[in-house]
Amino acid sequence: MTQLELARSGVISEQMRYVAEQEGLDATFVQQGVAEGTIVIPANINHGNLVPLGIGKGLRTKVNANIGTSSDFGNMSTELDKLQTAIDYGSDTVMDLSTGGDISAIRRAIVAASPLPVGTVPIYQVGLEAIVRHGAIVDMTIDDILDVIEEHATDGVDFVTVHCGVTKATVERLRHQGRVTNIVSRGGAFLAARILHTGEENPLYEYYDRLLDIARKYDVTLSLGDGLRPGSLADASDRAQFEELITLGELTDRAREAGVQVMIEGPGHLPLDQVVSNVQMEKSICRGAPFYVLGPLVTDIGAGYDHIVGAIGGAIAAAAGTDFLCYVTPTEHLGLPDTADVKEGVIASRIAAHAGDIVKGVKGARDWDDKMARARSSFDWETQAELSLNQERARGVHAKHTTAGRACSMCGDFCAMELIEKCLDSPQVRC
Amino acid sequence: MTQLELARSGVISEQMRYVAEQEGLDATFVQQGVAEGTIVIPANINHGNLVPLGIGKGLRTKVNANIGTSSDFGNMSTELDKLQTAIDYGSDTVMDLSTGGDISAIRRAIVAASPLPVGTVPIYQVGLEAIVRHGAIVDMTIDDILDVIEEHATDGVDFVTVHCGVTKATVERLRHQGRVTNIVSRGGAFLAARILHTGEENPLYEYYDRLLDIARKYDVTLSLGDGLRPGSLADASDRAQFEELITLGELTDRAREAGVQVMIEGPGHLPLDQVVSNVQMEKSICRGAPFYVLGPLVTDIGAGYDHIVGAIGGAIAAAAGTDFLCYVTPTEHLGLPDTADVKEGVIASRIAAHAGDIVKGVKGARDWDDKMARARSSFDWETQAELSLNQERARGVHAKHTTAGRACSMCGDFCAMELIEKCLDSPQVRC
Repeated sequence: MTQLELARSGVISEQMRYVAEQEGLDATFVQQGVAEGTIVIPANINHGNLVPLGIGKGLRTKVNANIGTSSDFGNMSTELDKLQTAIDYGSDTVMDLSTGGDISAIRRAIVAASPLPVGTVPIYQVGLEAIVRHGAIVDMTIDDILDVIEEHATDGVDFVTVHCGVTKATVERLRHQGRVTNIVSRGGAFLAARILHTGEENPLYEYYDRLLDIARKYDVTLSLGDGLRPGSLADASDRAQFEELITLGELTDRAREAGVQVMIEGPGHLPLDQVVSNVQMEKSICRGAPFYVLGPLVTDIGAGYDHIVGAIGGAIAAAAGTDFLCYVTPTEHLGLPDTADVKEGVIASRIAAHAGDIVKGVKGARDWDDKMARARSSFDWETQAELSLNQERARGVHAKHTTAGRACSMCGDFCAMELIEKCLDSPQVRC
Repeated sequence: MTQLELARSGVISEQMRYVAEQEGLDATFVQQGVAEGTIVIPANINHGNLVPLGIGKGLRTKVNANIGTSSDFGNMSTELDKLQTAIDYGSDTVMDLSTGGDISAIRRAIVAASPLPVGTVPIYQVGLEAIVRHGAIVDMTIDDILDVIEEHATDGVDFVTVHCGVTKATVERLRHQGRVTNIVSRGGAFLAARILHTGEENPLYEYYDRLLDIARKYDVTLSLGDGLRPGSLADASDRAQFEELITLGELTDRAREAGVQVMIEGPGHLPLDQVVSNVQMEKSICRGAPFYVLGPLVTDIGAGYDHIVGAIGGAIAAAAGTDFLCYVTPTEHLGLPDTADVKEGVIASRIAAHAGDIVKGVKGARDWDDKMARARSSFDWETQAELSLNQERARGVHAKHTTAGRACSMCGDFCAMELIEKCLDSPQVRC
């Protein structure tokens, strides 16, 4: 039985109990969330070394790091390094998006090395193999697709992005709408290309029940992909995007009926004032399914700094109820991230997630800030470093300019906190 | 006459005309905003090489970079380097916060070298001189204070932070409130210390009319400082903060009556869901005076990455109507920023300001994004770099991994935009 089926039947699984402990919550809260579908625990029965993790309502906002080769760069060693960096800096999950080299071997190595839930986008491999087998991506068949998904499931992948909502109707809406950046989702583009070339329906939509059978068998969580996510502000919140979201809502119902855990992927590029409404619409249309966003990116102009742009959108999204943030690295829109970029991306996303958790009232979230504030007011630099997201960096910046007194080099002899502490304690002293 | 007096008397000054041109607005719009006090043009009559800049309602959100020595580090050369970096990366103003070395000489050099409006916090110099002259900061007199302010005004400083709202009542509210990080504003701490030690009222409050006389004489814009800005989430939006804000509202009225331009400084550390309400309260209590915020910082735990934390709060604040963002650098809370930190701080703040301008509907703001999106969809990498905030970085990241095709190394042979473009144009082609 899947976690969803277990929860519905009133069982509190080992995984639910562990998640509850980690979050400081009652196990019955987690079990009820899983049963209702507002919480998922992506835990493939074949992922032996997995440390269970919950994503959803009432839980800490989680962060995902995308790793993996592209057709031109990266290999098993670089990607395992990225995995370790993602783990070291506190990513909650990783997705292996490899499209270059021996991608099956890379995926297996990542799953074997990862205590974090691992996600993939199987359609990439399907496309690569379709070129070899049939000569073109658009010639992939439903059996090609499901065989690869079952391979990933067998390998222990905990969640898969499946662009089931890229339907003929969605592509038609896209055509009528007109966009600046038509489709920026790779998987979405593969399936839309097939629809455009063959005139046939998306096999992942048409044969969704077969997909559900595989997902249920291994308890793979479906991450229903947003193939039509806007790739620019100009395309944000348009009819094509919402056509797909409506379909994803219907597919959410069907997944739950089949006992399959499901979450929903979301934008993408959105003006800042559309972030909250996008979260609300997903929660409403998909009946509270966990929402997993990429960014959102609140401006298109941040090339080289899109981790900051994504942190702005991600913090607002998280505060509004988004459950899961896919990181954005400084190389977004420009190239494949390396290990240093993975680090910066994870940290920026963790800041965003935590800023949201403070607003959500996630248990224990504000304690972290309060500890930092107290360490700051008592000039306890070691504790401040220990509470930082990158201890080495915090220590290094502080140590760069040493001062004679307790205060840092920003204010040196004229530290506001130090002065006011003296005067509040002993106003008679002439400071 | 000050810009405010000119505007009120129906005159469209050269500065108003220039600001209007830069913003693509009618000169009468700017003149009316200045007359109403919702726009300020900090333009000291002695700042010869100033390029006029407007801050306020209906205008592009502006960004300030703090530079200056501390008691331990920095000198004229390092600070002039920081000024140039701030200019190069698009800061709209700079503030010289020097407290080490020959601070009068550094200030004069910065004003002479800066086409941007220059701000200072004269109370720092007052405190330093009071230690030499009287043996303690708390012994500074009203004449000491006003003499330094007039020195800064004579030197051509365009706006000065003056913590006139740190009154006996404010300090009493602080005592009753209890805080984790009592006062984190240096100037605020100097004045609160004097109140605590002497029992006397803040001279800048008591002799506010004398301050207004100087400001009017040189058309120095007052930036009414928030000495009680929260230094941690635990202290956000408390009674001490709002006691000060109410006083600043009253002082805004008096400045305007005296023909003096005025803006209001704001937090500081605020949970994400208190940012908008803080902006609304300032606009309401201070009758639409331009709002100038530091951050806001939406979590306390970002040591080493506080430019990202500040960008999150700044973007939300800007979208809600904040007019002016003071940057935060990666060294905030840890040490004095160097030139590289100035660059990162300016860029992060500009991203935040622009994300806000998109929402505000600032004239021309979205054009920038739309140009970037079109360059992206046409694989025009040179235009993308030209539209970036840091062209060198954008080019460098893109060039790091070269590919055979048009797409970047993120997707290489499997670029979504490239694939879908082909299929939309020629669905008969087998991609």
